[in-house]
Amino acid sequence: MSEITDAPATALTTEAPGVLLYPEAFERIVAMLRAGITRLAADEPAPFTRLAVPPVISRRTIERAGYVTSFPHLLGTVHSYAGDAKRWGRLAPLAEEGGAWHADQEISDLVLLPAACYPTYATLAGRDLDAPARFHVEAHCFRQEATSEPGRLRTFRMVELVTAGDEEHCVAWRDRWLARVAQWLESMSLKVAIEEADDPFFGVGRKLYQAAQRMQKLKFELRVPVDGDQVQAIASANYHKDHFGEAFGFTAGGAAGQTACTAFGIERIAFALINVHGPQPDRWPAALWR
Amino acid sequence: MSEITDAPATALTTEAPGVLLYPEAFERIVAMLRAGITRLAADEPAPFTRLAVPPVISRRTIERAGYVTSFPHLLGTVHSYAGDAKRWGRLAPLAEEGGAWHADQEISDLVLLPAACYPTYATLAGRDLDAPARFHVEAHCFRQEATSEPGRLRTFRMVELVTAGDEEHCVAWRDRWLARVAQWLESMSLKVAIEEADDPFFGVGRKLYQAAQRMQKLKFELRVPVDGDQVQAIASANYHKDHFGEAFGFTAGGAAGQTACTAFGIERIAFALINVHGPQPDRWPAALWR
Repeated sequence: MSEITDAPATALTTEAPGVLLYPEAFERIVAMLRAGITRLAADEPAPFTRLAVPPVISRRTIERAGYVTSFPHLLGTVHSYAGDAKRWGRLAPLAEEGGAWHADQEISDLVLLPAACYPTYATLAGRDLDAPARFHVEAHCFRQEATSEPGRLRTFRMVELVTAGDEEHCVAWRDRWLARVAQWLESMSLKVAIEEADDPFFGVGRKLYQAAQRMQKLKFELRVPVDGDQVQAIASANYHKDHFGEAFGFTAGGAAGQTACTAFGIERIAFALINVHGPQPDRWPAALWR
Repeated sequence: MSEITDAPATALTTEAPGVLLYPEAFERIVAMLRAGITRLAADEPAPFTRLAVPPVISRRTIERAGYVTSFPHLLGTVHSYAGDAKRWGRLAPLAEEGGAWHADQEISDLVLLPAACYPTYATLAGRDLDAPARFHVEAHCFRQEATSEPGRLRTFRMVELVTAGDEEHCVAWRDRWLARVAQWLESMSLKVAIEEADDPFFGVGRKLYQAAQRMQKLKFELRVPVDGDQVQAIASANYHKDHFGEAFGFTAGGAAGQTACTAFGIERIAFALINVHGPQPDRWPAALWR
């Protein structure tokens, strides 16, 4: 255990906007949040299947999930050099000067993971769910954000609780978790505003897409100040209807499987706590560390 | 806490070779390894600075570090869509069918992190070290491996202990940690072979590069069976001479700063333990869980 006291939880910036390094005091907050979410999850009537998820995923899975179509501007694709050593001899001298050594990079079969839940839906392919399938996942996620306002990272950790089942189950589950997460955040002295939200759809159908999302009440965000008065969504509760059941081919109750999830933006929740309780976790109220 | 007993620690495969999902029983092993490394690190005469490192890093940092020049075939570059919504209207229909929607992807300022230690060197830029600077880092790393033999993942977790100082310090530190890590792995009943090694340099100078690395005894690998008799390097101890001090501009003892590191391949160590003790961590010797 660390014996450093009063160490600030301030993240270190790097040469790349939206890419931070996290000191030990920050990671204590992360561990506390993980433990808190695990306690919330323990009350669920049936256990969640926990999976640790890597930060890259099959490109085909993300294409199939519809993410590429809707959010191409946020997606990071993984490219690699497919040429031979001889050709590399001509490109290599450009590398140390920051020149165009990457002219021959080709797209690979992988993309950066945009949300922690994506790999779970593919594990259900071909199944007919006679009881809800629940997942508790954590991953480093990536979004190629255009701005770098406080809390708007490009690489960040996301914990998600996910359920798959029929419509009745998924709607009730999402509503129940929305309330529970708000209550949990408030118990840590965060001022939570629950707002109907939409996703940052890209393309000519944007207004229609977002209006349909709001009309169907698919997405709710829990918004909290993360830096002074700067507010960000630090968690969300989402109902996907049969989007993933159709895309990945699983069913429940004789129809395409439905899904819902609640997502926790770990760094953003930590920033919000630092904003309220100060940068030194050692001085935070003891109740937070139970 | 989980009440599931005897759950196997078997990782789940995905659609993408070398990209796995890890169940709770596997993550118990990961947590045990993290705790073991932290105990080893606690004996160091001065504390390590701990940093949690994200899975992407500034492309310029990796160019400067010389990684691009030497290992272009292993590097994953992050590309994104820089076009407008109108043009996307023409590409979007290709996305769900797996067509060439990615024709307009452009390279970004980020690459996938190839090793956990890279961000640490940049934090020393401009400094003159009057005492060694030590780091304890963990990250998800990426290598675009061509094969998928057991243990050869493309995305994996790496813990590294790093030191920066003068030549005498770095050489002694590397030798000491090589012995300590071997002893630690052996204490968990792993059969460790320590081997002089070289890096998988790409390009026409490969043989010369690798011979020079071996002649100078820069890299030692700790090799252990990870699946039956299939052996992989599960840890390494490396001396970089003044490579990073020159690249990032820090000094020690009046000369370019030198560095050394010891790297732990977390999944590979877990695979090696499963190979020896079986897939059910609940049945492993209690001494492993102290």
